[in-house]
Amino acid sequence: MQFFKVKTPEELKNELHAIVKPLDAETLGIESALGRILSKDVFSPVDLPDFHRSIMDGFAVRAQDTFGASPALPAYLTVVGEVLMGESATLRVSSGEAVKVATGGMLPAVADAVVMIEHTEYVDDTLIEVTRAAAPGENIIKIGEDVKVSEQILRGGHKLRPQDIGALAGLGILSVEVYRQPKVAIIPTGDEVIPPTETPQPGQIRDINSYSLAGLVHNAGSIPIPFDLVPDIHAALQESLAEALKQSNVVLISGGSSVGTRDVTLDVIEAYQGARVLAHGVSIRPGKPVIVAVVGDNKYVFGMPGNPVSVMVTFEVFVAPLLQQLLGIQQQAWHVRTVKAKLSTNISSDPGREDYIRVRLTETADGLIAEPVLGKSALISTMVKADGTVKIPIGAEGLEAGEEVMVALFQ
Amino acid sequence: MQFFKVKTPEELKNELHAIVKPLDAETLGIESALGRILSKDVFSPVDLPDFHRSIMDGFAVRAQDTFGASPALPAYLTVVGEVLMGESATLRVSSGEAVKVATGGMLPAVADAVVMIEHTEYVDDTLIEVTRAAAPGENIIKIGEDVKVSEQILRGGHKLRPQDIGALAGLGILSVEVYRQPKVAIIPTGDEVIPPTETPQPGQIRDINSYSLAGLVHNAGSIPIPFDLVPDIHAALQESLAEALKQSNVVLISGGSSVGTRDVTLDVIEAYQGARVLAHGVSIRPGKPVIVAVVGDNKYVFGMPGNPVSVMVTFEVFVAPLLQQLLGIQQQAWHVRTVKAKLSTNISSDPGREDYIRVRLTETADGLIAEPVLGKSALISTMVKADGTVKIPIGAEGLEAGEEVMVALFQ
Repeated sequence: MQFFKVKTPEELKNELHAIVKPLDAETLGIESALGRILSKDVFSPVDLPDFHRSIMDGFAVRAQDTFGASPALPAYLTVVGEVLMGESATLRVSSGEAVKVATGGMLPAVADAVVMIEHTEYVDDTLIEVTRAAAPGENIIKIGEDVKVSEQILRGGHKLRPQDIGALAGLGILSVEVYRQPKVAIIPTGDEVIPPTETPQPGQIRDINSYSLAGLVHNAGSIPIPFDLVPDIHAALQESLAEALKQSNVVLISGGSSVGTRDVTLDVIEAYQGARVLAHGVSIRPGKPVIVAVVGDNKYVFGMPGNPVSVMVTFEVFVAPLLQQLLGIQQQAWHVRTVKAKLSTNISSDPGREDYIRVRLTETADGLIAEPVLGKSALISTMVKADGTVKIPIGAEGLEAGEEVMVALFQ
Repeated sequence: MQFFKVKTPEELKNELHAIVKPLDAETLGIESALGRILSKDVFSPVDLPDFHRSIMDGFAVRAQDTFGASPALPAYLTVVGEVLMGESATLRVSSGEAVKVATGGMLPAVADAVVMIEHTEYVDDTLIEVTRAAAPGENIIKIGEDVKVSEQILRGGHKLRPQDIGALAGLGILSVEVYRQPKVAIIPTGDEVIPPTETPQPGQIRDINSYSLAGLVHNAGSIPIPFDLVPDIHAALQESLAEALKQSNVVLISGGSSVGTRDVTLDVIEAYQGARVLAHGVSIRPGKPVIVAVVGDNKYVFGMPGNPVSVMVTFEVFVAPLLQQLLGIQQQAWHVRTVKAKLSTNISSDPGREDYIRVRLTETADGLIAEPVLGKSALISTMVKADGTVKIPIGAEGLEAGEEVMVALFQ
């Protein structure tokens, strides 16, 4: 029997953080780039707008012609024409003149303000009275007021949101450089595991982990590549791992919960050319027996415990941050989806390990209550019943009922 | 000029909420169902597991044979065989006997506990000593302990997460009934608007809203259907709207920021057979001129103001909840992505309207600070610079510097 050299989660995360590099970039049309990560800063090739633009329905004027105007003492201006939407304003506004313009219309030359239609009245067909003074610049957007030519509008590492795609369209930037999405091979193992399409014989169990892992990979902005089930045979796993490393950046080997199977997984990973095992055993519960290796330049293999809960927890704690780094995401801490809640009961914990407690949330007059979902980590139903997890840090002996905790929500 | 009958956001939301119905259901394979909404409760067709299962590497025993065992006074058991992974345990454990079993293996008949391998030692080839007592049920999962046959495992209205898909796979449920995804037609209008692929002439501006709306629709779990730009001509918009209503559940007409264009949009919507205008003007800023109509049974048309910020705010406030309802989502409040922050400055607001303030977040030692992003709602750059919005409720005259606010984060 082999005993583990157990690392702390922090040690392993730091070690991974130090070596993981973002993937190469690719060029994508903006219509396909939502949610993708820019690999470099984006600068505007143009002024937006590139003409002075009205933001009200009204009359383009020289502001000084309206100074002092009031309902009692209106200013009188001659309407010399109208700017049609989407057309160049070829007219010129001379002193004492006004030009009709709609919201979004171009300002004619020399006009420097727009008087809202509500503050005007036609005296006759060509003469209006203006009942309120307009300040220079009022009700207009100046050239470059939205975005200036050469201005940096987005930075590398930024995740593209709907408004970012809209802004890129508005600037005529039709494609962007984004980091490639990590490909993640998922290899289920275990002599007792069968595809869900088959009917289990006594002693057999349907594959759960391939499905939950594929969902987690997808939600992490990456591409899952499902592999066929591999029995606990050295040669078969070796072959699958080699093929998986060809096709992907990260390989997740799920299953192997018994010591014997873990040994096969470890042997196969260790024997792989260019593989270096970073951890075999981490002080985390659930998930302690996880095996983590780096292969050559920037490829990673995880030997994950077979329990459905352990698989998901080790994914969230180690694989998800690694994928973020491969994706080049530089995201602020507040994007982690957490809510505050009060614990419903005491939870004890071994101070030598980091504990992840599944909790269910309930809304009460007193705020959110987090109630631990009890049950072994082999039970997928405990994850289905839970809304998120509470982490008990290494060194802590537990948490007390009524204590305020941060719940990391499931996506 | 037409004046609006202005509704409050609350009135409009309640009115919509009362009439919107979830779409029909469709059947999907579980591998395509991530993020989709179940249209009915799901019950388990089987017990999971359907055999007693070991969760440790060790020996299946009769618990009573180990009672009182300790390192000083071990119990001695004869090993009568081994259960192979994935195979039916055909052996029987009689009193004084033990059967070797690995994690995940099936328990032989009559055995009711597993002694961990760490608490045993081989005395000779067939005899072990057990140094710790096992309680009945220890280290095993009983039949149905994860999920019982006929048990409800998921409820209608639930959004399928990775663990839910995993659980369905584990139960052999290969397809599910989910609500169809709303199809959302996006019709950009405006004589001054051109496709981003073209170079604007003076007075012209590239289409922004089609792109940001497509992103918002996608992030809301729905399917955007982009339509060609429609000039501000009654007949052209009429034709597009008719086609859009054929193809979709919701139509978003963007643009029409000038009163003239709004009138065209309103006329076309009002004239549409079976359309009933619910609101023309809502006391919200930005977004006041929004037009909302229901068409026939469960189809909806929005005439959205042309400003990029107004478009996005009216989407988040009115369209996103409507899509949630069409999707059948019954989600808890804590799933709304909000964070608490302190305002950096005073913000004033007109008590007669609901104000949405764009804010940028900064992390400080004192917690998150929300700083308003100033700028007209015609500027898409203000949305690019912002991380989310703060709502100032109707009736409030503003917020004070240092006040704690909830920031709804952009996705």
